[in-house]
Amino acid sequence: MVTKNEIKQVGSLRQQKFRKELGLFVVEGRKMVEELLHSDFTTTALYATTVWNETFPQAETVSEVQMAQMSGQDTPPGILAVVKTPVKQQLSANPRFILALDGIANPGNMGTLIRTAEWFGIRDIVCSHDCVEVWNPKVVQATMGSLFRINVIEKGLPAFLTEQRSQGKAIYGALLEGENLFEMKQKPNGVIVIGSESHGIRENLLPLLSHPVTIPRMGNSQTESLNASVAGGIIMAEMTRPS
Amino acid sequence: MVTKNEIKQVGSLRQQKFRKELGLFVVEGRKMVEELLHSDFTTTALYATTVWNETFPQAETVSEVQMAQMSGQDTPPGILAVVKTPVKQQLSANPRFILALDGIANPGNMGTLIRTAEWFGIRDIVCSHDCVEVWNPKVVQATMGSLFRINVIEKGLPAFLTEQRSQGKAIYGALLEGENLFEMKQKPNGVIVIGSESHGIRENLLPLLSHPVTIPRMGNSQTESLNASVAGGIIMAEMTRPS
Repeated sequence: MVTKNEIKQVGSLRQQKFRKELGLFVVEGRKMVEELLHSDFTTTALYATTVWNETFPQAETVSEVQMAQMSGQDTPPGILAVVKTPVKQQLSANPRFILALDGIANPGNMGTLIRTAEWFGIRDIVCSHDCVEVWNPKVVQATMGSLFRINVIEKGLPAFLTEQRSQGKAIYGALLEGENLFEMKQKPNGVIVIGSESHGIRENLLPLLSHPVTIPRMGNSQTESLNASVAGGIIMAEMTRPS
Repeated sequence: MVTKNEIKQVGSLRQQKFRKELGLFVVEGRKMVEELLHSDFTTTALYATTVWNETFPQAETVSEVQMAQMSGQDTPPGILAVVKTPVKQQLSANPRFILALDGIANPGNMGTLIRTAEWFGIRDIVCSHDCVEVWNPKVVQATMGSLFRINVIEKGLPAFLTEQRSQGKAIYGALLEGENLFEMKQKPNGVIVIGSESHGIRENLLPLLSHPVTIPRMGNSQTESLNASVAGGIIMAEMTRPS
């Protein structure tokens, strides 16, 4: 039987403070939980309402009221896992591309960027310290499971990009004034930097970009910018496509 | 002085029922309201808290409490316009591309697709009857103003696509099994169909696609799909780029 204390603790994981303190986060929904169970993340508890008894016989059954007290979703899907936050992940040994995120604040964008990176074979993501936390439930859900297969590391970007450049890596950055993405010839490997929703790439990083790139606007468009995850998707698609 | 009734009516526009009944919708935030005032949409009322007195001298001043009662945002930006829903918009005379959305349900995706379409010079969007309503506050805000410059029409897609095909237009559709987007040669003009977040393009539309296209997955990616607005963005970028 699930205890009141347990329910309270799981519910507290909606808040970053308690996620940090307990080293735990929450994953919800059938598809997400299935992907979790196939990953090398450590699941510490699994709760389900009775509708899921057959699909997840190993889950502890809870009432819908109890599930709502634990869930971070407006409409709880009824299957919820508590997961250990992995110890500091490491970048792959010699990745072709790394995605660097500078102050991405919107959980949906963060999750979508992680999901898109995986689609395009990018396995390594470096987030600036002020990005939204990846264990935030909205980020977790928006990754659609990619979070379990991608290395996401928090690092100061000035030092990281300086180090990557000193190793001869190209540093691509999405800007409003840069080289036309579709006319760029050199696309071997490197770091792709995506800036925040409201301010783009921070000024102190601009001198570190070896290749400022722009997604060309068409027609007499009056839009000022693209959504960060759409821009990231278009650049990742272009960079990783076979030439 | 703003009346209690007025406040109540503006607040009711959070609900689709009242937006429909009153033929009105709400726009919030400095940038969005500025773009609105430069558009040919009809603003019926403009409210602002005192901080906006200088920027919007024409706005009626309301208290922060009153603004919170009218606003659809968690953190009201303090400047809010009430706008007439335009009478049924028309498609452009001879558009190069039309975006067709089949059951897009997430307001953020809908708004982002509208914003992205404008970036790539696409001015005409046809939504299936079950797409999220474009005057929904979350859609409006996610368009970042593009909504004021784009023709968005609701239409049954089977009839619309049949008609477009009979006129010799190419009908591109984003599918998991289609021609490799990056190897497609023919990209003159046509209709780009994006399916819903959960089910993709509906089965009854599949025979109407002349060009099923797929965004190729790279590496050993295990993701099942891309986010609908990211996929839409990548396809629009590729279709509209100068060859």
